Amino acid sequence: MRATKTKTHQTANLADEMRALGQAARAAARKMASATGAQKNAALRHAGEELLKQRGRIEKANAEDLKRGKAKGLSGPMLDRLRLDEKALKRLAEGLDQVTALPDPVGKEISRVVRPNGLLLLRVRVPIGTILIVYESRPNVTIEAGALCLKSGNACILRGGSEASASNAALVEVLRKGLDRAGLPEDAVSTPQTTDRAAISELLKLDALIDLVIPRGGESLIRAVAEQSRIPVIKHYKGVCHVYVHKDADPELAQKIVVNSKLQRVSVCNAAETLLVHRDLAQTLFPALAKALLEGGCELRAEPKAKAALEAAGIKQAKKADDDAFFSEYLDKIISVKLVGSLEEATDHIERYGSRHTEAIVTRDAAAGRRFQELVDSASVFVNASTRLADGFEFGLGAEIGISTDKLHARGPMGLEELTTYKWLGDGSGQLRG
Amino acid sequence: MRATKTKTHQTANLADEMRALGQAARAAARKMASATGAQKNAALRHAGEELLKQRGRIEKANAEDLKRGKAKGLSGPMLDRLRLDEKALKRLAEGLDQVTALPDPVGKEISRVVRPNGLLLLRVRVPIGTILIVYESRPNVTIEAGALCLKSGNACILRGGSEASASNAALVEVLRKGLDRAGLPEDAVSTPQTTDRAAISELLKLDALIDLVIPRGGESLIRAVAEQSRIPVIKHYKGVCHVYVHKDADPELAQKIVVNSKLQRVSVCNAAETLLVHRDLAQTLFPALAKALLEGGCELRAEPKAKAALEAAGIKQAKKADDDAFFSEYLDKIISVKLVGSLEEATDHIERYGSRHTEAIVTRDAAAGRRFQELVDSASVFVNASTRLADGFEFGLGAEIGISTDKLHARGPMGLEELTTYKWLGDGSGQLRG
Repeated sequence: MRATKTKTHQTANLADEMRALGQAARAAARKMASATGAQKNAALRHAGEELLKQRGRIEKANAEDLKRGKAKGLSGPMLDRLRLDEKALKRLAEGLDQVTALPDPVGKEISRVVRPNGLLLLRVRVPIGTILIVYESRPNVTIEAGALCLKSGNACILRGGSEASASNAALVEVLRKGLDRAGLPEDAVSTPQTTDRAAISELLKLDALIDLVIPRGGESLIRAVAEQSRIPVIKHYKGVCHVYVHKDADPELAQKIVVNSKLQRVSVCNAAETLLVHRDLAQTLFPALAKALLEGGCELRAEPKAKAALEAAGIKQAKKADDDAFFSEYLDKIISVKLVGSLEEATDHIERYGSRHTEAIVTRDAAAGRRFQELVDSASVFVNASTRLADGFEFGLGAEIGISTDKLHARGPMGLEELTTYKWLGDGSGQLRG
Repeated sequence: MRATKTKTHQTANLADEMRALGQAARAAARKMASATGAQKNAALRHAGEELLKQRGRIEKANAEDLKRGKAKGLSGPMLDRLRLDEKALKRLAEGLDQVTALPDPVGKEISRVVRPNGLLLLRVRVPIGTILIVYESRPNVTIEAGALCLKSGNACILRGGSEASASNAALVEVLRKGLDRAGLPEDAVSTPQTTDRAAISELLKLDALIDLVIPRGGESLIRAVAEQSRIPVIKHYKGVCHVYVHKDADPELAQKIVVNSKLQRVSVCNAAETLLVHRDLAQTLFPALAKALLEGGCELRAEPKAKAALEAAGIKQAKKADDDAFFSEYLDKIISVKLVGSLEEATDHIERYGSRHTEAIVTRDAAAGRRFQELVDSASVFVNASTRLADGFEFGLGAEIGISTDKLHARGPMGLEELTTYKWLGDGSGQLRG
């Protein structure tokens, strides 16, 4: 009984604490909605200064996290992600400058019309309100996501991984100080005081206070957030991106695009995970593509007919791909390969196994390219270009808060504009309903 | 044990049935995405013909529903909502013509840019995919919502109230026949074969097959859908709309706008439910507004100071409003009234009690109007116009699938464009990530 009682007591406290955090953020969001572009830019500039001024404090907090991480046995790459050295802090300060330089999305008119009754009707971009960002180990997300929310006039609650908790708290202080120095409410950026995972569950219930949740990280984190949340979530679970090489593809172009899509950087969601090649190329271009991938250090997992074709061409290294392989997001130097009989077989494969993120076709036939773009139901569909180009910077959005494979509100890379919603504003002179 | 076994068996069947319905809709949605505007218009025209041709069958089905409704003791207004007489069917046919005449939102370019690397990047409107509409007793929603989904290239699953099940099934057949005659997949419009409420719960789990849920009806239906759904939901729970009369308001204009907002039609979500009046007008315009409302047959529920002011002006009929009154969506000839000391007190009241639907200010001061539009966080904010104008037809959207008080994807009245999403299409010549 004792344990249960304590538990209930703690849970009630946690729920109250998270509600108070949400209420403070909501109140700050109301003020942020009226902030001018100049005020928001001043807050970002002050935060940049604080980042350098408070360097000692940040590095001390980061050292704590690193020490705890080492004691817990975190891997070398995990510790690297966690580390905030001078170079990392300089990059964060540069990132703040870049966001400052972006145009303010708030106040932009989406449409303006005078209705037949004389009502002037405007649709104007406004901040969404309060945004909860749940992310994993990299503490730089604290500054990057916080800056984008601030610039777009939103309040945000930032909840990073517990292994980076001291670093994140120090970086949140930097942003709050920047807000305060610019005369804006410091509660426009906040973070829970606790590393208790139950805090996230409590926050995800607050649909009257928080308007949007953006989870960033591994698929299991994102699924857990999406399943618990009563608040709208924008997310992508994974990126199982495809390159389809059509029968008429230019061989050189195909090789460049396949190699770049798969190997330019393997740990990211817009890297290709599956190569589909038209059957007519089984004895010609297909073995050449396989060789290029192998030379790049990539492992091939081939369905039986593709494997047989490669063996016939003297390529014995390909492993066997089972059906599950085609659902895999390797995030590594591995690719699934398959031969298909037609463009439609390729798009049917993508419909079944894909994650609606990014796909590319290589073809010399413009009509085939258009058909592929029409049939594939993904956020980004490219003709003769690398899947790696599906990115906020590459798309000219300036910066990216995340990538959405959902279909509502935002699809594909999300920039500042995707952190806004709109209001309908009507200016009348006594217009009534007739 | 027997009963439990049967129950489990039935539930499994129901889940399978609903999954099959979702799969058929998803397959149809893929075909609909490539349908031309001419094909979709042909389907709507054929459906209009079928509506008249199958009139006998529809009226017979409707008579069944009416008979069942009478036996169940449905009220007169409920039976009226259910009734599909010749006039109602003619109106539905006209509605189909109106949707046919609207521009096709699919394929519209949102943006077009050539990136520095030469990649042509387009953002193009595409259908959302599969949409589930859950609604209550009026069978005309079957045709109206079905037509809008069809025109925007989506597949839809229509789940109406059980009391209209025979009528809805007959109307769904009309749309399916229209699709079939136009060479489009009839599964682009479907409805569950069962009136079991558990069918809705099963459908709401199918987030891999259904892209969007739009619940329409009373607050309890909408809450039940929102709480169960794993699929994004666009909704409004209620419309607690406010009219605020600022201290400098033109008295005649104020009276017209208050009376129209409250009384032009009381049963709708954009009717005003609360009147806020600046304290400076307590002895002048406020009693005049109260009289006009009373003369229109409206009951007043006033907070103590407002009640006292009215009594001082000789108006004794106002009832007392408790705090709860200000959360109420009456949908009736009743209004809550309150005096406030400033524009900011009005907007704070709206923040606390409002539903983020539609609010209006009456003022002669353009700056006060703009300030009100800035501070109020609602889908539609009007200066000197009736709240009743927050409507798809009034906004020029052509037709309306619903009204959203959510902030993501669509806010306020939702027309055809809000039933689309977009794709990023990149046309390249070998662009790679550097």
